[in-house]
Amino acid sequence: MTNDVLGRTSAGALNLERLLRPRSVAIVGASANPGSTGRRVLANLERFSFSGEIHLVSRQGGEIAGRTSVTDIAALPMGVDLAVLAVPGTGVRDAVAQCVARGIGAAVVYASGFAEMGPEGRREQEEIARIAREGGLALVGPNCIGLTSFVDGTPLSFGIQQPAVINDPAVAILGQSGGMVGNIRLSCTARALPVSYTISTGNEAVLTINDFVAHIIDDTVTRVIAIFAEQLRDPQRFLALARDAFAAGKRIVLIHPGRSIRAQEAAASHTGSLATDHAVMQTLVTSAGVILVNGLDELTDVVELLLRTPDLPQEGPAILTESGAFKGLAADICADLGLDLPDLSVKTGERLACILPAFAHISNPLDVTAQGLQQLDIYGHAVSALLADPAVGSVILVLMPGSPEFGLKVVEEILPSIAGAAKPVIYTLLGDNSPIAPEIAGRLREAGIAFFRSPERALRAVARLWSAARTRPLAPRDDGIVIDLPATTGVLPEHRGKALLREAGLPIPTGRLAVSAADAALAASEIDGPVALKAQSAVLTHKSDLGGVSLNLSDEASVLAAFATQTAAIAKHRPDVVLDGVLVEAMAPKGHELVVSVRRDTDWGPVMMVGLGGVWIEALHDVAMLSPDSDRQDVLRALNGLKGGSILRGWRGEPAADLEAVVDTVIQLGRIIRGNPRIEEIEINPLSVRDAGQGATVLDALVTLS
Amino acid sequence: MTNDVLGRTSAGALNLERLLRPRSVAIVGASANPGSTGRRVLANLERFSFSGEIHLVSRQGGEIAGRTSVTDIAALPMGVDLAVLAVPGTGVRDAVAQCVARGIGAAVVYASGFAEMGPEGRREQEEIARIAREGGLALVGPNCIGLTSFVDGTPLSFGIQQPAVINDPAVAILGQSGGMVGNIRLSCTARALPVSYTISTGNEAVLTINDFVAHIIDDTVTRVIAIFAEQLRDPQRFLALARDAFAAGKRIVLIHPGRSIRAQEAAASHTGSLATDHAVMQTLVTSAGVILVNGLDELTDVVELLLRTPDLPQEGPAILTESGAFKGLAADICADLGLDLPDLSVKTGERLACILPAFAHISNPLDVTAQGLQQLDIYGHAVSALLADPAVGSVILVLMPGSPEFGLKVVEEILPSIAGAAKPVIYTLLGDNSPIAPEIAGRLREAGIAFFRSPERALRAVARLWSAARTRPLAPRDDGIVIDLPATTGVLPEHRGKALLREAGLPIPTGRLAVSAADAALAASEIDGPVALKAQSAVLTHKSDLGGVSLNLSDEASVLAAFATQTAAIAKHRPDVVLDGVLVEAMAPKGHELVVSVRRDTDWGPVMMVGLGGVWIEALHDVAMLSPDSDRQDVLRALNGLKGGSILRGWRGEPAADLEAVVDTVIQLGRIIRGNPRIEEIEINPLSVRDAGQGATVLDALVTLS
Repeated sequence: MTNDVLGRTSAGALNLERLLRPRSVAIVGASANPGSTGRRVLANLERFSFSGEIHLVSRQGGEIAGRTSVTDIAALPMGVDLAVLAVPGTGVRDAVAQCVARGIGAAVVYASGFAEMGPEGRREQEEIARIAREGGLALVGPNCIGLTSFVDGTPLSFGIQQPAVINDPAVAILGQSGGMVGNIRLSCTARALPVSYTISTGNEAVLTINDFVAHIIDDTVTRVIAIFAEQLRDPQRFLALARDAFAAGKRIVLIHPGRSIRAQEAAASHTGSLATDHAVMQTLVTSAGVILVNGLDELTDVVELLLRTPDLPQEGPAILTESGAFKGLAADICADLGLDLPDLSVKTGERLACILPAFAHISNPLDVTAQGLQQLDIYGHAVSALLADPAVGSVILVLMPGSPEFGLKVVEEILPSIAGAAKPVIYTLLGDNSPIAPEIAGRLREAGIAFFRSPERALRAVARLWSAARTRPLAPRDDGIVIDLPATTGVLPEHRGKALLREAGLPIPTGRLAVSAADAALAASEIDGPVALKAQSAVLTHKSDLGGVSLNLSDEASVLAAFATQTAAIAKHRPDVVLDGVLVEAMAPKGHELVVSVRRDTDWGPVMMVGLGGVWIEALHDVAMLSPDSDRQDVLRALNGLKGGSILRGWRGEPAADLEAVVDTVIQLGRIIRGNPRIEEIEINPLSVRDAGQGATVLDALVTLS
Repeated sequence: MTNDVLGRTSAGALNLERLLRPRSVAIVGASANPGSTGRRVLANLERFSFSGEIHLVSRQGGEIAGRTSVTDIAALPMGVDLAVLAVPGTGVRDAVAQCVARGIGAAVVYASGFAEMGPEGRREQEEIARIAREGGLALVGPNCIGLTSFVDGTPLSFGIQQPAVINDPAVAILGQSGGMVGNIRLSCTARALPVSYTISTGNEAVLTINDFVAHIIDDTVTRVIAIFAEQLRDPQRFLALARDAFAAGKRIVLIHPGRSIRAQEAAASHTGSLATDHAVMQTLVTSAGVILVNGLDELTDVVELLLRTPDLPQEGPAILTESGAFKGLAADICADLGLDLPDLSVKTGERLACILPAFAHISNPLDVTAQGLQQLDIYGHAVSALLADPAVGSVILVLMPGSPEFGLKVVEEILPSIAGAAKPVIYTLLGDNSPIAPEIAGRLREAGIAFFRSPERALRAVARLWSAARTRPLAPRDDGIVIDLPATTGVLPEHRGKALLREAGLPIPTGRLAVSAADAALAASEIDGPVALKAQSAVLTHKSDLGGVSLNLSDEASVLAAFATQTAAIAKHRPDVVLDGVLVEAMAPKGHELVVSVRRDTDWGPVMMVGLGGVWIEALHDVAMLSPDSDRQDVLRALNGLKGGSILRGWRGEPAADLEAVVDTVIQLGRIIRGNPRIEEIEINPLSVRDAGQGATVLDALVTLS
């Protein structure tokens, strides 16, 4: 698989210009029946006053909605930009071939019944894709409801579309599922958030979400790309695109169901999507600057913040409320979300003391008390004081809705203090869905203020963006170390794996392979202190269970005895195994046992992992995944974030473990996998880590080559 | 502290009838100024067409809003039912005393500036409370906005209130904070949920949330009691009331901020509330049948479900959607929430196969596909099939909103299949806040169907109630064991604590106290196998750190030596300590080490705890709290729910631990603390647990008496 941004298909070479900005459109399967797919597409084009040519292809021919039609694609003029195929699934392959023959540049295929239905459908879909690719046809679908560019006024969907004037900044909405794309558009439109594109890619026979992301990166009005992905095809290209999007000042917000088995089954039966490793996905997309959200509510909330407010700063929010009781609830919710509520500075406290009544308690959250109801200027002055505090990154107002008239009056009173503020301000009104003045949302939004009815949803969205603001996307690193790898594939025996890792600078115990009892004794005599003996063969993955490991041998007699015992035990339990010999190694001082690994995920490429060994990893799954591009700080943060992190930092007065030595090892593993495409996996289990400053030792290591 | 339902104050004896259904009301501090508190209370009474007498007390006297006033409480007729004190804080004490003198039955005090302001305010408040209690005055407040009975049409609040016709079933809303009570009422009213009472109790100088819960248990129209508590005063009375409410068919839904330090500070400065142990609160209120929620959105959502749907059954929901992509998202969300999505039965599958198009995949969540748009009867038939499945406890519809007209048409099509269904049906429309036909909510609610815009919020509320449906409230048990306790207080030395526990049937190792070296040797000779020697004194809580513990002594010489070493070590390190002697005990076979305890929380009373010892409890806080009324199943579930539960169930092919023996111990501890009010705490650390069927042994135990 190539890492090239153009990706694994030739789709990158296809002309998305003719797809997204066609000068001529042919509707194949046109019909006068108002409920028909073809007629609905035509109605959309008319509603958008599509300025290009419209051609109709209808088996019956004749006039449709006042336009003439032809009976066959072959009867179309050469070089129409785009064909909408409103034909049954069985007719798609022929129609696509005919489109290619007429020099058509792009096609939208609505029909279902392909990869989502099983192997036969998948074969038919692949055949269609082959024809399209070879013919240079930019094909969307099948099993989609099409796409609409609100920027260029091009609706290519059979769902009812309404033209809209799109202001900068806007959100582009992408996904396999037309239903979800449409639903997200409705949610955004209800909040007056401009939508630039809605693109349903369906089964992605040819064009994928990636191809559209690549195109939209250059779109001037789109600031946010919202994606509902059942599958990200070519994940490594997606990661590269995500970094490009971030560099271009665009943010990608992603929902990707599929953590649960049931969700994976659902995606397979819906758009023929294949499951991916969700933990790896989560680690790597976040490292590439993508904002991953868990649900549709959160998606819309985050999009609203991204479109309305300046980028969230690294400082946490101040919350201003007039309900003392909400203070406590907000504090608990922020604690649950891990959202920092900064302490107000002394200066802010002094300023607020002049503004608020004497009985008010000055803290964050700040309760301006019911006094605000008597003296409306308190709100504005208090917000200004909070915004001026350098410890405060944003301000969230949580107010009672009051009567519709009074609520509007409060908004008008506060607006001058918050419109155009250099820091994000979010205005929320309690009372869930209770009636408020209809002008309120509009007045706030005109002034660039995000407006939420649920303060709890606002806090969750702020927490998500605040956390994203503190993680910069990782740039791919080019400090790979090239190792001279053997030509063999599969798992290397420990002594060979360790030799490679020693060459790459990892802390491997002193020692060597010995091929006889006498040689083992000689090897042991070359080492200071007691030694370990470990039987060696690539096929022996559980050598200790088979009696192939002896520890703490401190004289020649015990080395000779251990050699004899091991070879006898292996010969007995595994007569098929020819040993390479035994590895004679210095015993390492006792330490904490960690597992440190790097592997090349089939979909996502290299990913690293750290965790405490034994019960921690096996019963508690206490591991942290990391991008291979992580730096020392990232690795240290991951180690400290482990459930067992307190053990490593020195528990019950014990000295702290040498975390720096762990970081060295992890960083080095990243460099190794980046430099050697044939390395599939390196698992160090355990890495024995001594007290701070004393280093770490690779006790066992498994290197797998492809 | 008494466990009596009438509680710790004499408030239970106060007449809430005169407070909630007054035949005469005096407004003290009446004023013609329309913005004044007194005038607003009067306006509310007039708006509700209050049918009783209204008296006005105004320093200036004269006519106010067409009514005469008197200048002093003393000038009121004797025996007015209720006085609303719209006077400044400094005037409250006098006014309360005068009310008592005039035989007034109840008073509502709005003024703030009492316990929430510090010790001085707290003293003043306590003095007011004393006067009220002694005078039999049912006092609400201070620092509240009052209360309104919508049932009897009695508004006693200065917030604007509108009369409402209340249908059964309704929700009563209680809380210290008037702002939060009002906010919850707005949220409920916006969903057309009938509200029977709104009661803001403020600083609760006399009447507390408990007193009103006790009253409302007997109210016929109230089915749900929603509480926003900054503090639950007399928590044990609350637990008893919660069980009574459950038995009376009412459900209590509770938000109780205060998990975080910041939230505790907020409550103290707001209504003078004191912090409680939140983990204990959570365990015990849930065990008493209370539904604890985390936020205001969830509170309203849960109230809606409780008022609209029959009680949720123990089976999980079926989800019906027309978006294949939402299936995956729903599956992930349910997995996160721990909400079981039952597999559909074969019969349901066959029935659905006849209803749905051939390409539909039959599973839960169920995607009826876009075919439903063409053939509306699919929805109703599919819902009926799901409702008929015995594995399905409820049905959640998740539909696209469509156009307002079409959306309404779909509702009308589905209504006959869901109205009056024996199982709960929840109707949700995607699209967040997008426009829908205004009739939709009303049509569904008339038919008793809960309606949500956010399917995600609906799922969360269903998960909360589904989990509550599977936990019955625990009845207080009366199987306490009475032990003959010594007269001393504080921590008992190990040998004495163990003797008590042995008497109560707990597995204590064979052994006894020895008072000399020779006696120790004799005691050891009475025991089969090796022994442990442990220095004994009530003040020695860390005896092993001081050299006061010797293990695995297998002959007389080592017992004598250990005795000498221990007494010397203690004499050196703690010359102040006079030892009781040494405890000579049989060594217990090796096992898993658990911590099992029971303690009497100052606020909440007895609570039990189980956890794995060592790193599990100290670094991971991996403990489960339990009601002392838990049964064997509850304890077993708690043990299995521990993070380290897999270790106990037999990890890596090891045999499982004797969980039954742990359950025996925990249940017995519950019986002991119930039977002996003087026991403050029993901590068994560790309880050594052997393989299944082999039992457990109390290795160390700390018993604390009061």
